[in-house]
Amino acid sequence: MLYVDNAATTKMSAAAINVMTTVINENWGNPSSLYTHGQSAKEVLEQARVDIAAVIDAQPREIYFTSGGSEADNQAIRSAAALGRKKGKMHIISSAFEHHAVLHTLDKLKSEGFEITLLDVHENGLIRPEEVEAAIREDTCLVTIMYANNEIGTIQPIRAIGEICRRKNVLFHVDAVQAVGHIPVSVALDNIDLLSASAHKFHGPKGVGFLYAKKGIALSNLIEGGAQERGKRAGTENVPGIAAMATALKEANEKLETNAEHMRKMRDLLIEGLRQIPHSALNGDEVNRLPGNVNFCFEGIEGESLLLLLDDKGICASSGSACTSGSLDPSHVLLAIGRVHDVAHGSLRLSIGEDITEADVEYLIRSVTEVVTYLRSFSPIWRDLMAGKKQFIL
Amino acid sequence: MLYVDNAATTKMSAAAINVMTTVINENWGNPSSLYTHGQSAKEVLEQARVDIAAVIDAQPREIYFTSGGSEADNQAIRSAAALGRKKGKMHIISSAFEHHAVLHTLDKLKSEGFEITLLDVHENGLIRPEEVEAAIREDTCLVTIMYANNEIGTIQPIRAIGEICRRKNVLFHVDAVQAVGHIPVSVALDNIDLLSASAHKFHGPKGVGFLYAKKGIALSNLIEGGAQERGKRAGTENVPGIAAMATALKEANEKLETNAEHMRKMRDLLIEGLRQIPHSALNGDEVNRLPGNVNFCFEGIEGESLLLLLDDKGICASSGSACTSGSLDPSHVLLAIGRVHDVAHGSLRLSIGEDITEADVEYLIRSVTEVVTYLRSFSPIWRDLMAGKKQFIL
Repeated sequence: MLYVDNAATTKMSAAAINVMTTVINENWGNPSSLYTHGQSAKEVLEQARVDIAAVIDAQPREIYFTSGGSEADNQAIRSAAALGRKKGKMHIISSAFEHHAVLHTLDKLKSEGFEITLLDVHENGLIRPEEVEAAIREDTCLVTIMYANNEIGTIQPIRAIGEICRRKNVLFHVDAVQAVGHIPVSVALDNIDLLSASAHKFHGPKGVGFLYAKKGIALSNLIEGGAQERGKRAGTENVPGIAAMATALKEANEKLETNAEHMRKMRDLLIEGLRQIPHSALNGDEVNRLPGNVNFCFEGIEGESLLLLLDDKGICASSGSACTSGSLDPSHVLLAIGRVHDVAHGSLRLSIGEDITEADVEYLIRSVTEVVTYLRSFSPIWRDLMAGKKQFIL
Repeated sequence: MLYVDNAATTKMSAAAINVMTTVINENWGNPSSLYTHGQSAKEVLEQARVDIAAVIDAQPREIYFTSGGSEADNQAIRSAAALGRKKGKMHIISSAFEHHAVLHTLDKLKSEGFEITLLDVHENGLIRPEEVEAAIREDTCLVTIMYANNEIGTIQPIRAIGEICRRKNVLFHVDAVQAVGHIPVSVALDNIDLLSASAHKFHGPKGVGFLYAKKGIALSNLIEGGAQERGKRAGTENVPGIAAMATALKEANEKLETNAEHMRKMRDLLIEGLRQIPHSALNGDEVNRLPGNVNFCFEGIEGESLLLLLDDKGICASSGSACTSGSLDPSHVLLAIGRVHDVAHGSLRLSIGEDITEADVEYLIRSVTEVVTYLRSFSPIWRDLMAGKKQFIL
């Protein structure tokens, strides 16, 4: 199996599995319990908080554990909105190609009276800081922009946007689910107020994530109940999962530069190879791009058939976000960067892992080329394109 | 270590750990992904849904996976409230000794315009079905009552309450976190519309739970985003945790009768032994009681000191809910059954596990008796009681 869908989920690292199993067997007490066995679980929990905070340049008390990135996104945005409402500030700025955990929360807020401005991401998938600045109004309470896009891998100019938000005194939330553990993220240097992350995107376990909230920002509860996480997130803490997340993140962070360098090299080889396929185009920016992300559109084919045939060759890939697969609509991300429906349908995302080899890349190029050629051979759209009945777009 | 705090959390069973590890290593794909590796994770997920549904007499499509009992409680109550609001029905019935995941959600709903009636639980901790019936009004949208109390173990007459709710056409939510896997629970026989459960209370993993919602009940999202869980709970599914939860629940259910019989016997021995301590009293009902729950008040002592001295003897116990430990307020549950502050402060909950032996019970009786006697020997309250300056209550 050649797994190139690391943006959808990653395999847990051996170290993370090991820590999780150890904590399950040895520190399985309830961290809220007073006895030694409970307190040893509490220590594991707090050490994880220290370790995670260190990676993103935060203070431990600024880290809140959640069940994942979606929960963290929801809570961050809802919290900023509640703070905004109190001050009569009910305008939020975001972009049209955020993750659905952000967009759907914004939809809900819209129905509750908030006004939402979705910034243009332009053809390269990049937001222009000056457009953020221009969009900020007197009543803006929040700017929420993802660090790196989950489909096309575009890395936004977060530092520049953060600087503007700080200067304009507007809260800045960053969905960093695809960034944390993959590229350097510093909430201090980037002027980030709220940040969401998910463990299973950096070789940690599923069902665990964290929300960073800068000291002084009062979070609203999404889940009411017990006094866990300083009263801001109820429910017995998933100590084994949290400890495994911290282990995975430390590990990813330590190897970050080496891994990124290797992945960028492999990514660029892969891009170069796939570009040889006629009427294809890379989606997203070439420079400001996650080290592991390759995303192409191939004219005249259906992404789903492409995936199924690649699966037959042992290749696990996707057409876009796993969260929306099963839906027949083309990717909202590809539409946001201006791809027309027909072209957006023929998309392929290859999100490579740290252990990818040059031989893997060669196999990928050969397989994708073969499958695209094969699918085009009986595609009515392709026939029309070749016969000149339709115009090529790519 | 003698762990008698199973109501706070339980040790994962070997079978559950084994399944979790296997799924982590073999079915770690994203269940929303189309390729074989994703679909194998999807199969694990759906098998877990089938297995869990079977245990509580539900249909698989009525099971929604959550991050735990608190999230399930929040979502169930919020969903019923949203449905009520649409029909102009904004009255909710509950009890004063529900879990905080329920009570705090109700507090929030109150601030949003709902009217809440909290039923009396009487001295034995039992709700009277006729009082539920009397409290139901034209504008009642929900009755939410816990199956078994987490502190004093009282098992409510759920079937009788469910029958009334069905007849009166009012939604019935049951927080069954302490019941599922411990006593028989059938949503069909009990006429339950919404039910919450948590895996780590029945030897499953932390950070996983489920919400049962009867077919036809439209859930509101607590977490917005991807289309997971039929669009009602966003976020990549914690497949290993969910599979482990299903394994633990099946296991608990298979051994339910045998375990319960043994635990009831041990529980009653323990109660008999602790009753020999003068000026002590069992909290909760003797008959309608969880097989594993023992909860006592000892006059003239502080529960926290008791716990610390028991910890020195290797005994892990609690004074009440782990979720509220650290707080100096006495248990809201004990206050609800009419214990005065002073007495409620001297509480001890021993929630025994399936593997408890008669020797363990003897050790518990001996240790608690010793520690209570020791603490009373230098308690000013006890001195006043003995000197007749204060009246004994127990």
